[in-house]
Amino acid sequence: MELLDGQLTSRAIKDALTLQVAQLKTEGKKVPHLAAVLVGNNGASETYVGAKVKACAEIGFSSTLLRLEESVSENKLLSVIEELNNDIDIDGILVQLPLPKHISDEKVINAIHPSKDVDGFHPENVGRMVQGLSTFVPATPHGIMLMLEHYKIDTRGKHAVVVGRSNIVGRPMSILLSGNSNPGNCTVTICHSHTRNLQELCLQADIIVAALGKPEFVTASMVKKGAIIIDVGITRVPDASKKSGFALKGDVNFKEVAPLASYITPVPGGVGPMTIAALLKNTYQACITRNGDGN
Amino acid sequence: MELLDGQLTSRAIKDALTLQVAQLKTEGKKVPHLAAVLVGNNGASETYVGAKVKACAEIGFSSTLLRLEESVSENKLLSVIEELNNDIDIDGILVQLPLPKHISDEKVINAIHPSKDVDGFHPENVGRMVQGLSTFVPATPHGIMLMLEHYKIDTRGKHAVVVGRSNIVGRPMSILLSGNSNPGNCTVTICHSHTRNLQELCLQADIIVAALGKPEFVTASMVKKGAIIIDVGITRVPDASKKSGFALKGDVNFKEVAPLASYITPVPGGVGPMTIAALLKNTYQACITRNGDGN
Repeated sequence: MELLDGQLTSRAIKDALTLQVAQLKTEGKKVPHLAAVLVGNNGASETYVGAKVKACAEIGFSSTLLRLEESVSENKLLSVIEELNNDIDIDGILVQLPLPKHISDEKVINAIHPSKDVDGFHPENVGRMVQGLSTFVPATPHGIMLMLEHYKIDTRGKHAVVVGRSNIVGRPMSILLSGNSNPGNCTVTICHSHTRNLQELCLQADIIVAALGKPEFVTASMVKKGAIIIDVGITRVPDASKKSGFALKGDVNFKEVAPLASYITPVPGGVGPMTIAALLKNTYQACITRNGDGN
Repeated sequence: MELLDGQLTSRAIKDALTLQVAQLKTEGKKVPHLAAVLVGNNGASETYVGAKVKACAEIGFSSTLLRLEESVSENKLLSVIEELNNDIDIDGILVQLPLPKHISDEKVINAIHPSKDVDGFHPENVGRMVQGLSTFVPATPHGIMLMLEHYKIDTRGKHAVVVGRSNIVGRPMSILLSGNSNPGNCTVTICHSHTRNLQELCLQADIIVAALGKPEFVTASMVKKGAIIIDVGITRVPDASKKSGFALKGDVNFKEVAPLASYITPVPGGVGPMTIAALLKNTYQACITRNGDGN
């Protein structure tokens, strides 16, 4: 069993980006600039956005954090996005979700110009991903693909079972893994709450992507020997033995499943760190694409 | 075994649309208007476009057929599309594919305004389909979904195996059948040229969608008793016993497979006629959406 180490892999990606940014500076070109919009004071959202801004600073990107009150109107938020769309210095825009209930996620995401939509949530970018065109792939699936690439895992012809069909993980993973690409070219089965024989299907899988958000759902009895296990879940589970009072659990029972697996992502330290690396790669790509070869 | 009759089903859909159009006329409202663009003189393309224009006339839609020379420049074609985008009387635009080699399909399709893209090929509409938002679903997959709906087939929890991953059939079918909708909510396995154990996978299927373009590829040895068989293929195969010199064959060996199936689409007369019905439904929807409730 080999661990798919998200810390090491994301570190390698960030190191490569650091060099690329330094090169841009040497050439007197503009460095990538990410604008993050945070509405309200949700603790988890603060943490996520904070980590993204910090990661930008680490590798030499510019970043701008725009904080808006929880009570901000949808129109005001839309006009903020319009300003960012028109600001030639901004390469990537992300709006941290979830938004307050009085604001439509859909309207806000669709307002971001596709060329700056580094979260890859705009329908046009999703459609381009489906069609195999250049696009921004959402951070989590992109991070997983980068991890498979980093470990030189040959996925072609393998049977991948994706558990979960969310728009941000399961659905794009099923599309990317079955696409005519490398990594990719898997036979893919997408499973969800209506799937009847999940155990039987998982037992056939050469690759399992667990993205359903149920701690330790995937057990040894569902896993074929030698399978590759990608664990996207991360749930806080009460644990009196921890100082914090909780432990972080993935969707896979790591202790049981790891001995069977050929490769497996730990939680934490697997898929999680890859998502920020993927976002940074998207932002770099946005900068280079928007500013052309000559930047 | 029950036949999924595309002639009858598409007739029912066209009859319903005929009544809806008559109602629009009674209310003094605008009727749907489809613009079809045909470049060059490809025989098959002529036939397809001709059938679409004829179907519009049958049910009371307006239609405009724009013919352009094979040698037309990409820019000229793009400016024709721009005019159609801006023409308030046009509700739906379709450009018959394939285009001559000197013209980029991608550029042309992306130039059609998403609100008039009744073929559903624009990335924004593809992305909206993935996200489960209102959109135009491409004609063939839309037609298949309408057929499943018409025959009140309960697909929820069934295992669908889709053979083929093209952007116009296999890929959207895999997305629609696995979506949280009715029909839908299937577990879906998408197979393609790199799939290793196709027979074994097909034998597990409650629903097989054959969309690979290989005549009579799916045989009895690949089909579980009681399966629902959707045959998207249509290939001309030489046949000296026919006056025309050829027979039309689907991707399924109908004679062998039909006795095993609970439902099966014939070729011809199955999926084929449904595609035009689906295009007409999209055009009607475009008209109603663009002109609002008050039309």
